[in-house]
Amino acid sequence: MLDFQLRDMVERTLTEDMGQVGDVTTMATVGPKIKGKGSIVAREGLVVSGLAIARMTFLVVDPTVKFEAVAKDGARLAKGDVIATLSGSLRSILIAERPALNFLGRLSGIATNTHAFVEAVTGLTAKVVDTRKTTPLHRALEKAAIRHGGAHNHRFNLTDGILIKDNHVIACGGVEQAVAEAKKNLPHHLIKIGVEVDRIDQIEPALAAGAEHLLLDNMAPTTLKKAVALVDGRATTEASGGVRLNTVRGIAETGVDFISSGSLIHAARWVDVALDFDTSL
Amino acid sequence: MLDFQLRDMVERTLTEDMGQVGDVTTMATVGPKIKGKGSIVAREGLVVSGLAIARMTFLVVDPTVKFEAVAKDGARLAKGDVIATLSGSLRSILIAERPALNFLGRLSGIATNTHAFVEAVTGLTAKVVDTRKTTPLHRALEKAAIRHGGAHNHRFNLTDGILIKDNHVIACGGVEQAVAEAKKNLPHHLIKIGVEVDRIDQIEPALAAGAEHLLLDNMAPTTLKKAVALVDGRATTEASGGVRLNTVRGIAETGVDFISSGSLIHAARWVDVALDFDTSL
Amino acid sequence: MLDFQLRDMVERTLTEDMGQVGDVTTMATVGPKIKGKGSIVAREGLVVSGLAIARMTFLVVDPTVKFEAVAKDGARLAKGDVIATLSGSLRSILIAERPALNFLGRLSGIATNTHAFVEAVTGLTAKVVDTRKTTPLHRALEKAAIRHGGAHNHRFNLTDGILIKDNHVIACGGVEQAVAEAKKNLPHHLIKIGVEVDRIDQIEPALAAGAEHLLLDNMAPTTLKKAVALVDGRATTEASGGVRLNTVRGIAETGVDFISSGSLIHAARWVDVALDFDTSL
Amino acid sequence: MLDFQLRDMVERTLTEDMGQVGDVTTMATVGPKIKGKGSIVAREGLVVSGLAIARMTFLVVDPTVKFEAVAKDGARLAKGDVIATLSGSLRSILIAERPALNFLGRLSGIATNTHAFVEAVTGLTAKVVDTRKTTPLHRALEKAAIRHGGAHNHRFNLTDGILIKDNHVIACGGVEQAVAEAKKNLPHHLIKIGVEVDRIDQIEPALAAGAEHLLLDNMAPTTLKKAVALVDGRATTEASGGVRLNTVRGIAETGVDFISSGSLIHAARWVDVALDFDTSL
Amino acid sequence: MLDFQLRDMVERTLTEDMGQVGDVTTMATVGPKIKGKGSIVAREGLVVSGLAIARMTFLVVDPTVKFEAVAKDGARLAKGDVIATLSGSLRSILIAERPALNFLGRLSGIATNTHAFVEAVTGLTAKVVDTRKTTPLHRALEKAAIRHGGAHNHRFNLTDGILIKDNHVIACGGVEQAVAEAKKNLPHHLIKIGVEVDRIDQIEPALAAGAEHLLLDNMAPTTLKKAVALVDGRATTEASGGVRLNTVRGIAETGVDFISSGSLIHAARWVDVALDFDTSL
Amino acid sequence: MLDFQLRDMVERTLTEDMGQVGDVTTMATVGPKIKGKGSIVAREGLVVSGLAIARMTFLVVDPTVKFEAVAKDGARLAKGDVIATLSGSLRSILIAERPALNFLGRLSGIATNTHAFVEAVTGLTAKVVDTRKTTPLHRALEKAAIRHGGAHNHRFNLTDGILIKDNHVIACGGVEQAVAEAKKNLPHHLIKIGVEVDRIDQIEPALAAGAEHLLLDNMAPTTLKKAVALVDGRATTEASGGVRLNTVRGIAETGVDFISSGSLIHAARWVDVALDFDTSL
Repeated sequence: MLDFQLRDMVERTLTEDMGQVGDVTTMATVGPKIKGKGSIVAREGLVVSGLAIARMTFLVVDPTVKFEAVAKDGARLAKGDVIATLSGSLRSILIAERPALNFLGRLSGIATNTHAFVEAVTGLTAKVVDTRKTTPLHRALEKAAIRHGGAHNHRFNLTDGILIKDNHVIACGGVEQAVAEAKKNLPHHLIKIGVEVDRIDQIEPALAAGAEHLLLDNMAPTTLKKAVALVDGRATTEASGGVRLNTVRGIAETGVDFISSGSLIHAARWVDVALDFDTSL
Repeated sequence: MLDFQLRDMVERTLTEDMGQVGDVTTMATVGPKIKGKGSIVAREGLVVSGLAIARMTFLVVDPTVKFEAVAKDGARLAKGDVIATLSGSLRSILIAERPALNFLGRLSGIATNTHAFVEAVTGLTAKVVDTRKTTPLHRALEKAAIRHGGAHNHRFNLTDGILIKDNHVIACGGVEQAVAEAKKNLPHHLIKIGVEVDRIDQIEPALAAGAEHLLLDNMAPTTLKKAVALVDGRATTEASGGVRLNTVRGIAETGVDFISSGSLIHAARWVDVALDFDTSL
Repeated sequence: MLDFQLRDMVERTLTEDMGQVGDVTTMATVGPKIKGKGSIVAREGLVVSGLAIARMTFLVVDPTVKFEAVAKDGARLAKGDVIATLSGSLRSILIAERPALNFLGRLSGIATNTHAFVEAVTGLTAKVVDTRKTTPLHRALEKAAIRHGGAHNHRFNLTDGILIKDNHVIACGGVEQAVAEAKKNLPHHLIKIGVEVDRIDQIEPALAAGAEHLLLDNMAPTTLKKAVALVDGRATTEASGGVRLNTVRGIAETGVDFISSGSLIHAARWVDVALDFDTSL
Repeated sequence: MLDFQLRDMVERTLTEDMGQVGDVTTMATVGPKIKGKGSIVAREGLVVSGLAIARMTFLVVDPTVKFEAVAKDGARLAKGDVIATLSGSLRSILIAERPALNFLGRLSGIATNTHAFVEAVTGLTAKVVDTRKTTPLHRALEKAAIRHGGAHNHRFNLTDGILIKDNHVIACGGVEQAVAEAKKNLPHHLIKIGVEVDRIDQIEPALAAGAEHLLLDNMAPTTLKKAVALVDGRATTEASGGVRLNTVRGIAETGVDFISSGSLIHAARWVDVALDFDTSL
Repeated sequence: MLDFQLRDMVERTLTEDMGQVGDVTTMATVGPKIKGKGSIVAREGLVVSGLAIARMTFLVVDPTVKFEAVAKDGARLAKGDVIATLSGSLRSILIAERPALNFLGRLSGIATNTHAFVEAVTGLTAKVVDTRKTTPLHRALEKAAIRHGGAHNHRFNLTDGILIKDNHVIACGGVEQAVAEAKKNLPHHLIKIGVEVDRIDQIEPALAAGAEHLLLDNMAPTTLKKAVALVDGRATTEASGGVRLNTVRGIAETGVDFISSGSLIHAARWVDVALDFDTSL
Repeated sequence: MLDFQLRDMVERTLTEDMGQVGDVTTMATVGPKIKGKGSIVAREGLVVSGLAIARMTFLVVDPTVKFEAVAKDGARLAKGDVIATLSGSLRSILIAERPALNFLGRLSGIATNTHAFVEAVTGLTAKVVDTRKTTPLHRALEKAAIRHGGAHNHRFNLTDGILIKDNHVIACGGVEQAVAEAKKNLPHHLIKIGVEVDRIDQIEPALAAGAEHLLLDNMAPTTLKKAVALVDGRATTEASGGVRLNTVRGIAETGVDFISSGSLIHAARWVDVALDFDTSL
């Protein structure tokens, strides 16, 4: 995301949090000249994500606040590690604190959860990827958190990838017709055609129709293994459906190329990040 | 939220999901005249939230789609229960499906998690309330989900409530001065002044200063109990800090009026809701 | 308001005033390198309001223009007093002049009018407050002008305060039910419940129902006095309805806590502020 | 203004007035099925303006509310006359009431004040016109109110008219050069060139330079009369500067073609319009 | 594009064309009850594009206007053929006419020009595709016009396709490193990697590095032919650079899979479409 | 256009071109510290237009990029001439390159085409002017390009000029009535009234009605000549309709004051401008 896109999202977020007058408590009790200094710290082990938008939150409130990232997006931190340091107008820091931490805690939560999935498949070739099950208006940020967690992204929107699912096949009258129509209407020629299959016997027809990528939906590991063997490199393969942290390694061991899981985001809880002020305040 | 506010959020969400051409797979494979019919079902036990924005998602894509809510926001459903039925252009339904379910799954997840907290304090007078730790740009929706889950809201933004926290007291030179300044700058006279206290000995000064509500931060249940006894109705009391599902009842038993918890949202995972098409498609 | 909110309002205002090419007269006749210097002066006695947005207007047109506030918002100035000084590109100053003065003249007009009301109740305890009768899209600015004039604000929007009026009571079937419903649906627990009463005999039922604030609507001073005596501190009291500059003191003398008046804004005319250029131009 | 422009302004206005949850008092106390009926009435003599945006306010809140204009924009009403009738969901009507009346009261106030100026010059040929001293973001609405009051508009923005003022002449090195530059840079050929003159001796040079319209600034009536005689139809003439209701007729009697006055808007107070519900509610 | 996206673009366009009051000429001279009827006709041979947004333009101005498309996007019309018929309020039709025709004339111009390129390669397998050289803010509309003209689209934005060009290779230190980096950072796995080559000797290294698509930039037909033979199906091939209507067939005869040309849009002039009113008006 | 207006257009344009992640190819292959240097050059003879928005495009992507205009808008350049030089982050320059050149190539194309028309009438008094046939959302930029090409603008929108066309006359019941209505509803008094006439015999009635400007529509040069003679300075005259580069001089020779042509924009192709990097990169 370019800076103006982060800025736009931060401005909407601050509008939501400020109400019509702003932080009346802080304005009433903290003089405009009081300076503050503090650190954003990890209150638990986590993988960092969201530094750019957290930083932008402080800068939109007050461009004179100094935000210095100590860690980088994607860094694995232990409890107590410092993520960033802050100094400047105490008023401004207090006003921006909650929205900034809301971004950082959510996104780091997703990166941390994702990282657990990636760790679970260590040493295997399968790549963990996300889905379109993302929080509305946060897709770009959440997809970045997925990358910070060590996984990869799936398509970003409905224009930039073709995935023919069961309803498409039924409505179109068969996989052959569906792939043919998709090819004819391909958004552009740098995009591959993916087809969802639920059963082993759907694989050959899909390949014959021209599928370059197969989404193996809701198959048990033993079935997946057979499917991978059958495909034998004629298309890339992706396992999907009900992937959980405790099942992901078993799926990866089947040899699929990709494992897509909505759980990277669905099951992520926010991690605990806090702004600690210097005691000398 | 008024309809135009839901519509605005849906339009931004669809823009995010459509890309520049839209659902190219569906457009290529599903003819414009094919009709579809289906139900949004709960794939697990849950408390519903998000019906209005899910409905609006289908209507923005196509105002001729018929969306009939079977359950209401706040309803407790069992696995397999129907949330809503849909009929109309199959194309339109498929295009709106994912964004609509993203709203519904997230918000019902929050309502469901909230409901567990509310259940945990059954029979006690303490009210469970939320915090400002909400997903950026989703506050109104998430605060509604909190209500659908049976809990109550805390302030919506920084203008509509006064909460004097430790940093405000320090910066202002004492709780007496902080409350006096806040009173002088009260946004308006229908708003009460809340003060955060971390220790028992801070209670009397806060009450003396004029606090009408006390935020008892990070106190153990035994301390909370003493605090409630000491306050003795001179202000309303709110326990906050590290409230979890397994600790909330113990906190409620101390007699506090309110228990605020970011976990209602932080720890909520999405629940599984799906759109099942009629097999006769 | 945060800077980006002022900036947004200024940009919309300039768009309105510039048309598609901008200030064609100035562009044609004033060379880009000509410098100007001048002062914004009070052409009559007034109370200042609007400095931040006036300053922002010049800065949005040209960030190199130097705007130095001489007076502060809330200052009482005599005819001829300087409000701010300006120097920089003459083109830029001329382009921003009219919109900047439109903000300043309007808002100072409201502050000046408000100040007259506040002066009228000098020595009495009643606080003068505004209403929701504000110019659409200018509420935050006008409410600030009210404060600059020495009065206080009433609620900012329909979420941040409860005021049960006659129609609500009728529709709900009685004041008891109305207050009970409102309490159950209170936006949050830092908000008090206000109830409008038109007659003395409505006071006890309202208090019994749980009203924490009473809006005494359209009562004559003698009635108000009785009402205040009857309430006797059990709730805060607010007189409203047809409050004018020549009646406000009489109302304040009844002992009410608050007097709300739409006239602070309705009856305010713009004050005369002008940009005088140095003769040496 | 086209409907979508009114709608956009109404949506922003409602966002300002609703806060994040909306009219919590009304939602809590007025059931969704209760119907209401009422009339918007003039509480004092006035000239109507703002019907379209008042109507749009109700429709944006709820398209099923029935708003029937009884009077037309520009109509002169006596105290007690009905402006419009309303029926439909009582909730919706109560939610839209205040913002709708804010538009109507303000704009009718401007139309009413304008009408007084127009009446004052009855029988004379001078046309009363407005200026660019309008409330930011309300220019189109206020300029319509000016027309409803019987006066005429001056230019709408800085692109659609050329007015060379004293600073332009000074910066450009003389009126001849200024007009020449303006002609060379005329936005387009359907626009006339106006020149401001403060003294009689500036008239001939301005005409010689090519002025098609003369702004006679801050001249006393006797001077204005001489100016008009001197111009003798070679350009249209416009008196401006400090025009008040009690001076406007004297100015008109000098024979000028136009009299422009910021007071039409500056000095306008809101008129009293109210929504009376049927007693049978 | 979904309806709300067309509507948004139309609203901005009308705002641009209306100014602050709208079509004052039409409002003054055409009574609100006068009906009109007419046809949008092709004044020259053309390929239609832009029907949806032209229709939306009339509907945004007035939803009661009846717009009936007679031709479809992509239709080849002769001079005099009717594109659509219109009936309804004459005022509304006149107000929407120019902006609607501006969309239709531009987009049909692009479709018509594109069609000439497509015709030029009749019988050959090469597909004509567009580029990112599109009019700012019109990309989705122009890319649709390309399809209506019978050609295909290239990538829509910088996220949905990888094209490694000369500067990327230089900056990355070689084609091998560049492709490796791109693969590692692939937006997602349904996207192919394209590499630009300017000389025959760059082809083998690009293929070895993993290129799935080759952009053969600015090669003469004889070179292109050799390149195609060398690639021999190991990647898809695309000719680009200086493609003109009179050179496109020669390029297609080399056997490349795709020919991309900015000229489809750059060199397109608007075609002449007009709204003819029924003589009986 | 003021800077914030250019910035807003650039931000929308970049959003269109970036997609949800941005320039993934460049981000993957060009390190963040690599510097670049280059020149935007004219690849053919052209008249420059669009420097301000091209510069803004680079600055929005990265405010540290140095963009130095070598030529000015309106400059006539030969093939190979440098328009501007660039230095700074290579990443930033590559990301902004295409959108910046899209603005510059389009607008310079219009300026160049316009210039040809202006050259064609050298030595004659007729001024070439544009029309409302402009690309939606680009009117201000295109009208500036018209000026850079040496021609003049016609009205910018429907509020800032009155042009009574045939349909208006018919609907109003005659030219006399139409002009009278227009005068009564004139947006303001600095605007002239133009009337379209198709035949010589319509001229006297139009003048008698009060037309100050005559649009002589679709008249052959011989007719135009007669019309000009007949008007004889009683109004300004404008020839319109089917004006082409090869007919414009003949039309100008008839003595008309203005010649308006949609072809200035319709028939303009983009000119070839490119960003050449220093070979030492």
